[in-house]
Amino acid sequence: MPDSIPADSVGLVSPQTLHIDSPIILEGGKSLPAYDLVFETYGQLNQDASNAILICHALSGDHHVAGYYTMEDKRPGWWDNVIGPGKAIDTNQFFVVCLNNLGGCKGSTGPTSINPETNTPYGPDFPIITVNDWVKSQAVLADNLNIHQWVAVVGGSLGGMQAMQWAISLPERLKHVIMIAAAPKLSAQNIAFNEVARTAIKGDPDFHEGYYASHDTLPRKGLGLARMLGHITYLSDEAMGEKFGRELRHGSINYGFDVEFQIESYLRYQSETFAEQFDANTYLLMTKALDYFDPASDFQDDLTKAVSEIQAKCLVISFTTDWRFSPERSQEIVNALLSANKDVTYAEIEANQGHDAFLFPIPRYHDILNAYMKKIASEVTSP
Amino acid sequence: MPDSIPADSVGLVSPQTLHIDSPIILEGGKSLPAYDLVFETYGQLNQDASNAILICHALSGDHHVAGYYTMEDKRPGWWDNVIGPGKAIDTNQFFVVCLNNLGGCKGSTGPTSINPETNTPYGPDFPIITVNDWVKSQAVLADNLNIHQWVAVVGGSLGGMQAMQWAISLPERLKHVIMIAAAPKLSAQNIAFNEVARTAIKGDPDFHEGYYASHDTLPRKGLGLARMLGHITYLSDEAMGEKFGRELRHGSINYGFDVEFQIESYLRYQSETFAEQFDANTYLLMTKALDYFDPASDFQDDLTKAVSEIQAKCLVISFTTDWRFSPERSQEIVNALLSANKDVTYAEIEANQGHDAFLFPIPRYHDILNAYMKKIASEVTSP
Repeated sequence: MPDSIPADSVGLVSPQTLHIDSPIILEGGKSLPAYDLVFETYGQLNQDASNAILICHALSGDHHVAGYYTMEDKRPGWWDNVIGPGKAIDTNQFFVVCLNNLGGCKGSTGPTSINPETNTPYGPDFPIITVNDWVKSQAVLADNLNIHQWVAVVGGSLGGMQAMQWAISLPERLKHVIMIAAAPKLSAQNIAFNEVARTAIKGDPDFHEGYYASHDTLPRKGLGLARMLGHITYLSDEAMGEKFGRELRHGSINYGFDVEFQIESYLRYQSETFAEQFDANTYLLMTKALDYFDPASDFQDDLTKAVSEIQAKCLVISFTTDWRFSPERSQEIVNALLSANKDVTYAEIEANQGHDAFLFPIPRYHDILNAYMKKIASEVTSP
Repeated sequence: MPDSIPADSVGLVSPQTLHIDSPIILEGGKSLPAYDLVFETYGQLNQDASNAILICHALSGDHHVAGYYTMEDKRPGWWDNVIGPGKAIDTNQFFVVCLNNLGGCKGSTGPTSINPETNTPYGPDFPIITVNDWVKSQAVLADNLNIHQWVAVVGGSLGGMQAMQWAISLPERLKHVIMIAAAPKLSAQNIAFNEVARTAIKGDPDFHEGYYASHDTLPRKGLGLARMLGHITYLSDEAMGEKFGRELRHGSINYGFDVEFQIESYLRYQSETFAEQFDANTYLLMTKALDYFDPASDFQDDLTKAVSEIQAKCLVISFTTDWRFSPERSQEIVNALLSANKDVTYAEIEANQGHDAFLFPIPRYHDILNAYMKKIASEVTSP
């Protein structure tokens, strides 16, 4: 292992691409004639393919969950603190898979991909994608990796919703499901925040009805606004207060519209960097997937009925200061699982980071993940 | 009283204008050479001018607090449920005054007024206004009305902050202060929401650096976004859930970017109507006044010291589901007042309307206001 990469890292990794040359029919009625799925894997698949774990990413996440791309990489994958040799999701034990979701902008077929019908990027013509569609395409990836059953499907936030949908839709294809900082559906307030973000993006004159690529521009302001707003909902009031408080950028008040407080500076920076890194049409699609997620809606709005076919054992984790998907939302999932007589473990973690807590190495959180994963490891043969 | 106006209304009212032909030096260091204050009054000032109440308005409020302008008016002033004959703030007992704040857009001198130096509207050249500046200009109005001492200064939200500043800055000029759904300063999260709103307005290409008037346009999209976002913070998650839930606009899901949920439709409507009614430069100024409000900052961040000179008796009211200025924020005020040995009454009202609750006729809330005002009325002679 090179000097500059930590010993408990999966090390240098590289993404793979699976090309699927047959159509996928989407929940909204449209279909894609063919598609690519970009993914990474860490660890070794064992002989009976019984040690595979699927990680599902959240709104702006991607397939790069752990490790480094180059020796110069400053930052590892987005969940490197959980995945690696000896870590909670131990790559000495498990074969870990994460893909960029369909509709994404990091390599899997999405709005920036070429539409074979027009030979130009899909842009806004890319069809609406739902959590069900993701589960369907993730199952195609599993088939291609010869994984009939995941030992666990794991996700935080929108990733937790995918994990939940896996357990509901394909109950025999996973043994455990881990849903972190998730909710069984969005509240009106959640949808409202998404709608503000969408309105900001669509209202940017550089959006061009989604055809910004052909205008050789990006809706930087709109996407930046969406990101600023997102950040507010990912952080708790407490975390923002501790991190920024009312600290002034220049030491004294200037009575003007330039940055006065550190929090303004932080948000402006977040806004500017994000708009260069993420596709606006993908952002719109992700917010719609969130809005539409509502597994109980197929069961007369009865979540207990919705989860009644689940075979997986369930771990549900929430964070005290998460106000995007509060502990009460996780408890809705837990209560439904209990009512349906499922095997469920629930932990509410004291944490001040708000919704973002699921990405932080909070000791009690990682201890619980670690203990749960150890139990799973004992059920499978090492690779 | 005409048939169509309720008997407990102050009836038909009309605003007055006070022109002040001497300069006001503002906290930020700039000054206005002269200015207008538009205000309304209800009830009669008694002989010794001891029954006057000042109502301070919030971010998008104005001087039209009660009554109707015409017989055709569909809506009365914004706090008509509290102010009128026999109501909590009884106009048979009290002389009620409310003005449009300096920097406003409803008649008092603000960004839409003509700058005497250029003979064009101030627009973005209008100086930054603070809560201190408002108290100062409100005191000028009081002087002109021959009111040396208000029997009460009352406000909700940003209005409550003005009331608090009155009690701190001009302690001998008010006998009671009523601070509703207020906070002693904004949190980082509060500032963050304001910054998103400002970024939306300033990023609208129709904003033209604030000179939209000379371009014969309005930053409708930006101001609309700011308003949408504001609405989310004014309402509780609960209130939004009860009012809109996940109800679909068209009965079934359409898998597209048109309105799917009722909440989206509501926000779009709010956004569109507001942008025609309110000035964007004023909106920016109001958010800055909120950001800057921090009376403890002049007292080594010690709120107890800041309130130590208060002579007024204090009533503080908060609402359980208000997450913009939560009950904890009101309790900070109460605790400081108690530490400083002030006379303070505190009520936390069970209400599901969020921050907006202060505008609703919630029985326990109005009962408390009513009882408190009855006590005040007993201290003054009737007009």
